[in-house]
Amino acid sequence: MHILIIGAAGMIGRKLTEQLVAQGRLGPTAIERLTLADIVVPQPPAGFAGAAECVAADLSQPATASQLLSGRPDVVFHLAAIVSGEAEAHFEKGYAINLDGTRHLLEAIRLAHAQDAYRPRLIFTSSIAVFGAPFPDAIDDEFLTAPLTSYGTQKAVAELLLSDYTRKGFLDGIGIRLPTICIRPGKPNLAASGFFSNILREPLVGQEAVLPVSRDLRHWFASPRTAVGFLLHAGALDLARIGPRRCLNMPGLSATVGDEIEALKRVAGEQAVKLIRCEPDETIIRIVSGWAQNFQPQRALALGFKADASFDDIIRSHIDDELGGHIGP
Amino acid sequence: MHILIIGAAGMIGRKLTEQLVAQGRLGPTAIERLTLADIVVPQPPAGFAGAAECVAADLSQPATASQLLSGRPDVVFHLAAIVSGEAEAHFEKGYAINLDGTRHLLEAIRLAHAQDAYRPRLIFTSSIAVFGAPFPDAIDDEFLTAPLTSYGTQKAVAELLLSDYTRKGFLDGIGIRLPTICIRPGKPNLAASGFFSNILREPLVGQEAVLPVSRDLRHWFASPRTAVGFLLHAGALDLARIGPRRCLNMPGLSATVGDEIEALKRVAGEQAVKLIRCEPDETIIRIVSGWAQNFQPQRALALGFKADASFDDIIRSHIDDELGGHIGP
Repeated sequence: MHILIIGAAGMIGRKLTEQLVAQGRLGPTAIERLTLADIVVPQPPAGFAGAAECVAADLSQPATASQLLSGRPDVVFHLAAIVSGEAEAHFEKGYAINLDGTRHLLEAIRLAHAQDAYRPRLIFTSSIAVFGAPFPDAIDDEFLTAPLTSYGTQKAVAELLLSDYTRKGFLDGIGIRLPTICIRPGKPNLAASGFFSNILREPLVGQEAVLPVSRDLRHWFASPRTAVGFLLHAGALDLARIGPRRCLNMPGLSATVGDEIEALKRVAGEQAVKLIRCEPDETIIRIVSGWAQNFQPQRALALGFKADASFDDIIRSHIDDELGGHIGP
Repeated sequence: MHILIIGAAGMIGRKLTEQLVAQGRLGPTAIERLTLADIVVPQPPAGFAGAAECVAADLSQPATASQLLSGRPDVVFHLAAIVSGEAEAHFEKGYAINLDGTRHLLEAIRLAHAQDAYRPRLIFTSSIAVFGAPFPDAIDDEFLTAPLTSYGTQKAVAELLLSDYTRKGFLDGIGIRLPTICIRPGKPNLAASGFFSNILREPLVGQEAVLPVSRDLRHWFASPRTAVGFLLHAGALDLARIGPRRCLNMPGLSATVGDEIEALKRVAGEQAVKLIRCEPDETIIRIVSGWAQNFQPQRALALGFKADASFDDIIRSHIDDELGGHIGP
């Protein structure tokens, strides 16, 4: 099997690559070849026995996608995106990558299909940003995609195209709407959602973190490990079971900020919790008040996608995967 | 006020033009200038006192839209589309007009907005084809857009873009999802939905018509007169009342084929009904089984959009508007 990962240098892309290399297979099928693409050249996959190619590729250029497909990968993971805040600030850039880039990829597949009946599996990472307030108590599988950001709009458009190109038989597509990833590794950043990760990640290494919202704010989470699990499951699943609605709300953990802090206390003790400083920020409070809090992802659950069981598990997987099992400064 | 109609040579475009000319105003505002555009040059608007320009314009060409906007129309009606059957048969053509054409229009408005703060009202005709089976008993305003045709996909994408461009302040947009238009004037055509109109229009002039489905098939209808009423209402409505979800299910008449035939009997007598010949067609039965049957268009009703009251009214408006008040051969 030949697998192409577009967006392989990002956080999820790197973890997905690691996991594919560690397993050596996707579902039952051995991986013989990996093509890793991103706007910067991705790192070569350490310890991979097969053939690997790492390429810089700008998907907003119309010719890029057909070059990436020249080796006719059996499975394409399309993770590349301009993130929410950047797509909102830079309208043209967001549309160029998130909408046009995805369409270029779909079109290149369609034209290859016309040439030689090429028909890859395409796994597309969408987002719960396709939904916009007001919300029901829990968003079900039939709730409308009425995004309130350009990023969410671009993802929702890509989803529609993915379903139509699949229906026409050009490819076999699945879109997975990721919950907010927590604990996101790395440094604190300026994303409005950053605090969900910051208040756990920083205290776990003895650093202070700021909590800008109230403890009763509820949101929808998946750990990086679980998100990679979604991708691997989507890569091996019998897609004939999905039907024509090709994009699925992934199962997440619905939890409050208070639940996060309680879990931190159980896993890392009261001294970790003391490092969280409350500094209400009206701007962030207003932004997050428009975010989805809970879902009923019945279709994804029936298809075998699995959520994190608790925030304790989310914190422990972070300690294992990012901190070598060690808590503290 | 300067009004641009894109798709002015089509059935709805011609009726809209007639109505605008007859009223001389849109809402409270006098119309001084009309620009009528279509892929073929539209007929000049008969009896219009203001300045009129009729132009051939191919919206799939990127430069067309900015030319159409050079006179900075205050209101743009965007009705141009490749219809459902043609968009399904000709994949590239459907996307070129229905998706790219609409995007070119939105982009031309955005660039004009950046130049001189231009911000027109844009009224976009969408369709209930944005919905795909399985359906609830009645589709409410929060039901997902999961189309099962390329046409429906293209309309759903255009809707998302319209809402995002409105949210960003580039334009003031509203999308209206038209029910199936009935009675469609003209000759019988090969559209799968044609029989809904054929079984009324043909008997009203003493001609036979074929009914390929059962009498208990239910569907969602609006007369051409009512559809034009939606457009006029959308053109004058205070759009600030709509909120960020800019595309609305229009109110229609939910009726069965049997209801159509009963109304025909009341309006035109038993001899008209006898001209309907039952010839079940399994292909058409299968296609229409995937179509929406009923809606709860609460938002549009609250905003003052009005449906046809009965099929008797629909038939009578056809007799008035198309047959000069006369029934029979």
